[in-house]
Amino acid sequence: MAFGDKMVRIAVDAMGGDYAPEEIVKGAILAAKEETGVELTLVGRLDILEDKLTGFDAPGNITIEAAPEVIEMGENPSWAVRAKKNSSIVVGMKLVQEKKGDAIVSAGNTGAVVGAAFLILGRIKGISKPAIATIIPTPSKPVLLLDVGATTDCKPQNIFQFAKMGQAYLTNVLRIENPSIGILSIGEERGKGNELVQEAYGLLEKSKLKFIGNVEGRDILFGKADIVVCDGFTGNVALKLMEGMAEMFFSKVKSTITESFASRLGGLLLAPGLKKLKRKLDYQEYGGAQLLGINGVCIISHGSSKAKAIKNSIRLAADTVRKDVVLAIKESIENDRERE
Amino acid sequence: MAFGDKMVRIAVDAMGGDYAPEEIVKGAILAAKEETGVELTLVGRLDILEDKLTGFDAPGNITIEAAPEVIEMGENPSWAVRAKKNSSIVVGMKLVQEKKGDAIVSAGNTGAVVGAAFLILGRIKGISKPAIATIIPTPSKPVLLLDVGATTDCKPQNIFQFAKMGQAYLTNVLRIENPSIGILSIGEERGKGNELVQEAYGLLEKSKLKFIGNVEGRDILFGKADIVVCDGFTGNVALKLMEGMAEMFFSKVKSTITESFASRLGGLLLAPGLKKLKRKLDYQEYGGAQLLGINGVCIISHGSSKAKAIKNSIRLAADTVRKDVVLAIKESIENDRERE
Repeated sequence: MAFGDKMVRIAVDAMGGDYAPEEIVKGAILAAKEETGVELTLVGRLDILEDKLTGFDAPGNITIEAAPEVIEMGENPSWAVRAKKNSSIVVGMKLVQEKKGDAIVSAGNTGAVVGAAFLILGRIKGISKPAIATIIPTPSKPVLLLDVGATTDCKPQNIFQFAKMGQAYLTNVLRIENPSIGILSIGEERGKGNELVQEAYGLLEKSKLKFIGNVEGRDILFGKADIVVCDGFTGNVALKLMEGMAEMFFSKVKSTITESFASRLGGLLLAPGLKKLKRKLDYQEYGGAQLLGINGVCIISHGSSKAKAIKNSIRLAADTVRKDVVLAIKESIENDRERE
Repeated sequence: MAFGDKMVRIAVDAMGGDYAPEEIVKGAILAAKEETGVELTLVGRLDILEDKLTGFDAPGNITIEAAPEVIEMGENPSWAVRAKKNSSIVVGMKLVQEKKGDAIVSAGNTGAVVGAAFLILGRIKGISKPAIATIIPTPSKPVLLLDVGATTDCKPQNIFQFAKMGQAYLTNVLRIENPSIGILSIGEERGKGNELVQEAYGLLEKSKLKFIGNVEGRDILFGKADIVVCDGFTGNVALKLMEGMAEMFFSKVKSTITESFASRLGGLLLAPGLKKLKRKLDYQEYGGAQLLGINGVCIISHGSSKAKAIKNSIRLAADTVRKDVVLAIKESIENDRERE
């Protein structure tokens, strides 16, 4: 492995996310202390970050890169990336482009991160559109879902490439041999789904991938496939719905517990088990999503990430660099070409 | 109201669904006993149904209409509807076409029900594509989601018509005045979403509907809008994901409860509250989905419907006939024309 003994240098967008910069800085400090072999560069407003680092007693493997501008969460991504050249997202991405960083972690405006990565780092040859791949925590096993929001309007070929990238990622980074791949649809039978799914099905079926056909929403949760591919619109709707369901469910169980004395006692007795379940289904444990298809490692953390999620994102970034997912995807695409 | 005092005659597809005919017949008998002013016609295989009705001691307001063929759950819908003219779905639909029935209830092959309704009953003038509208049980309030599977590839105009139909349904049948309408998307801001959503947004924005803009998956659950519109592919993925999440949660809580003596005791104390929550989130309570846009009342029950769900579907069918949703949609479309 190229990075076996080398330091992994990670640019962290300190200004992106609902709890930036506070929680981002905290998360970076946690990671810098716990992870060996990483050097972190917090990208953002110099005055704020210097102040925070001093306050939090930061270790020596964290430095600061000045980026006076901030792309806000609601801003138009393509406009913002072009207009705000000194934003933390653009400056961080340039560190990776200039080989001063091996990866970038951002909890900021997802569209802007995807846009900046595409513009500055460029896409992997043979991949037309990028995809955000995220691990869905399910009770049975983690499932990789992609795309969850990078490419909202897809062609069948894009979905096929997502499957290839997902396979390369799972095989090389998560060491899952020959992962099974399903396409998100609305019925198990071949022929179910919209036109996009039906055409992508045809491409997947002819490939050497371990394609298991259509999977439905509930199948994601019951671990029917290791990888589930879909367009970025459907994937993002699904992801947010799962998060919302988990949130609603735990909040409703909580209010059920507070209803009476008996239920409060019951809740007390059940608390350890419920906490364990909640942790198991918590996206923060998984540390964010991978932007696949670009020439670099880019981890997109959830907008509502707190310190723990940022720490896990940094760990994921380091691991992804060491296992060289970009090379794995390149080889996977290259192999296909040779076969043709 | 046209049906204030008149009998409502409902054709019930006795052969459709995972638990047909047993649970369908049971559900019909429950409805025939509990509901006043309904006459039910069980459509299906004569020998089986006669046998069941005798066994279950059926009341007098249930009759049988012979339909020797059955469209299976996995069969290709458009083929099956054309080939199996004597299937329970086609025969039931013809009862409505010939005015021998006011509505049809089926838990069978959804594609076949939609196809047969479209072919036999025809669509409402001014509506290009049908939509399946279903009530999503959420803790705050019921939300109407459409389309959940009738039209998988939509044009912006279809989404707009779904909103009109949803409004007519909610106003006339559920008596919700001036319901708010959101479009399912992947971000709150205007401009978020795929091309379809962005174009449909433009149509909704210009209309007289109470359009509140984009809503995300989690917003469905937190009751941000009374009606959420989307294409039938996305809606079906979302629906099945929500069902799957609820199923997974309750099964996981159950296994959490059985983990230890303390947790078993805790579960016992929490049982009444959890049961109440489960019932609140149970689709069976709502009795199925409405197929909107066709010239007739057609209730599509969940494939896994048991007697209770069928009974509720029959009740919903009777209510929908009495409140004349078809007329309401026609008037809503007509009003728009006059304004133009």
